[in-house]
Amino acid sequence: MADYRPIGVFDSGLGGLTVLKEIEKILPDESFVYFGDTGRVPYGNKSDEIIKLYARQDAKFLLKHNVKYIVAACGTVSSVAIDTAKELPVPFMGVVETAVMDAVKTTKNGKIGVIGTEATINNGAHKKEILKLLPDATVCTKACPLFVPLVEEGLFSASDGIVKETAERYLRDMLKDGIDTLILGCTHYPLLSDVIKEVAGDSVKLINTGVSTAVKLKDELTARGMLREENSEPTKSFFVSDRTVAFSRVAKILFGSEINDISVKVADISKI
Amino acid sequence: MADYRPIGVFDSGLGGLTVLKEIEKILPDESFVYFGDTGRVPYGNKSDEIIKLYARQDAKFLLKHNVKYIVAACGTVSSVAIDTAKELPVPFMGVVETAVMDAVKTTKNGKIGVIGTEATINNGAHKKEILKLLPDATVCTKACPLFVPLVEEGLFSASDGIVKETAERYLRDMLKDGIDTLILGCTHYPLLSDVIKEVAGDSVKLINTGVSTAVKLKDELTARGMLREENSEPTKSFFVSDRTVAFSRVAKILFGSEINDISVKVADISKI
Repeated sequence: MADYRPIGVFDSGLGGLTVLKEIEKILPDESFVYFGDTGRVPYGNKSDEIIKLYARQDAKFLLKHNVKYIVAACGTVSSVAIDTAKELPVPFMGVVETAVMDAVKTTKNGKIGVIGTEATINNGAHKKEILKLLPDATVCTKACPLFVPLVEEGLFSASDGIVKETAERYLRDMLKDGIDTLILGCTHYPLLSDVIKEVAGDSVKLINTGVSTAVKLKDELTARGMLREENSEPTKSFFVSDRTVAFSRVAKILFGSEINDISVKVADISKI
Repeated sequence: MADYRPIGVFDSGLGGLTVLKEIEKILPDESFVYFGDTGRVPYGNKSDEIIKLYARQDAKFLLKHNVKYIVAACGTVSSVAIDTAKELPVPFMGVVETAVMDAVKTTKNGKIGVIGTEATINNGAHKKEILKLLPDATVCTKACPLFVPLVEEGLFSASDGIVKETAERYLRDMLKDGIDTLILGCTHYPLLSDVIKEVAGDSVKLINTGVSTAVKLKDELTARGMLREENSEPTKSFFVSDRTVAFSRVAKILFGSEINDISVKVADISKI
C-alpha cells in the first residue's frame, strides 16, 4: 500500500522550514505542501483564542491541497491549539509531543529545560506533557523573545558577542539548576544550536524538535502504510500568506537553500 | 469654536503609545481613542499591499468612534500607506512627515540619519520626504529589527551590554558618515534615546517622532479651530485587536503608566 498524497506542514511563518528540512532528509521520497502564515506572523505573542483560530484556518488550507498528514511545525500552535487535532479528517502531529517524548527518553537526572516564545512558555504545554510521562521531572522553562529576531537578522554565530551574551542570560538559571536536557521549543532555535551548546556545555543534550518530528513522522507513516513509493519525483509546494520584505533572506537562513520567488505562491488565508 | 470629538490615534501595536504620551503632555484637554492592532502586529515585516489594507481598516475603526483627526502613530503605516490620507473624511497626520520637517529644520550640515523597521527603511519614505524639502541632503538609513524586541523585553538601559552593542552596530556607519541629526523612525525607539545619545554623542540631535507629531497636531488643531475646550474631563479609550500575553507589561514600558485590563477593550478588526 502506498499513499501518494503530500504531507502538509504549516507554521506561523518561516520557522517551520527548519522542521521541513529535517523531514526532507529523513523522508526524501515524500511530496509536501508547506504553508507559512507570514501575513500574520508571529503567533508567539498573540492570545490563545487567536492562535486557535489561525491554526484551524491553516489546517483547512492544507486540507484543500489534499494532504495525508498535517504537521504543525510551530511550537506555539502545537502547545496552544492541541484541540485542533481532534477536528481533523487526517492524522496530525505537533512539535511539542515529539520533542517531549525525546527529552524524556534522553534525560538521566530528570531535569529538563524548555526554551521557546513567550506564548509557548506561558502556556506550559511542554511542562504538562513532560510531567505526564515523567511525574518526578524538574522542568525549568524560559521565554527567549530575542532569539527569533536575532536568527532572522542572520545573527546566530557562536562567535557573535550579542548572540553569546543573549544566550548566556536566557540559559543562566536553568544551567544553575542542573538540567541535562534542553528542548529547543521554537523552530528557529536549531540555528542557535552552536552557541547554545557552547553556553550549556557538553553535559546538556539539545532536543531539536525538527529531528524529533521527522523521525516520529517516518515511524507513523510506516506503521499506517502511508509512505509514498518512489516511482516518480515528489512534488514540493510552498505557500505564504504574504510575500514579505525579508522572505528570501530568512527562508535561505532557515531552509539552508534558496527558495526563489517563483516557487512560492501567495495564498489569501483570510478567505479560508 | 470648539470641537469636542476625540482625536483618533492608531498603531500596528503598542508602539504608538509613545506618541500618545507626547500628545497627552502637549494637549492635556483633548479626548482620544487609541487603537493598537495587537492581533496583527508587527506591520514592519509585511508587504506594502497588506500594510495599506490594515491601515484602511484601522482608520475605519477610529471613524466609527467619531474622531475629528486621525494620527497614524506608526512609522510603517506613515511611510507605506500615505495614500490612505486622501480617502479620509477627517484630517490625517503621519509620523513620517512631522519627523522629517523637524529633522530638516534641525540639521546644520545636511547629513540626516534615519533608523526604523525593515519596511520603513526599505520603503524609503523618509528619504524621499527629506529630499523634497532639502534636495542637497545626504540621507543615511539603517533598518534596526532588533530594537523593538529589545524594548518590549524591557532591555533599553544604556548600561546594558546587549543594548549598547546592538546600538553601536546599527549606528556605526551613519556616525562615520558624519550625520548631525537622527530621526527615530519607529515609535519604540524613544525608549532607547539614552543609549543612542551615548553612542552617537552630543553632536547628533535626535528627532523623537512623538514630540514632533504632538507639536504639529497642536498647531493644526489651533489653526483649524478644532481644539476641545476644557469644560469637562476628556475621555480616554483604549482598544486593541487582541489582548496579548505581554500587553500590560509592554503598555507600561511604552506609555509610562499602567493601562489596566479594565480600561482596554478588544475590537474585532477583521469585521471592519
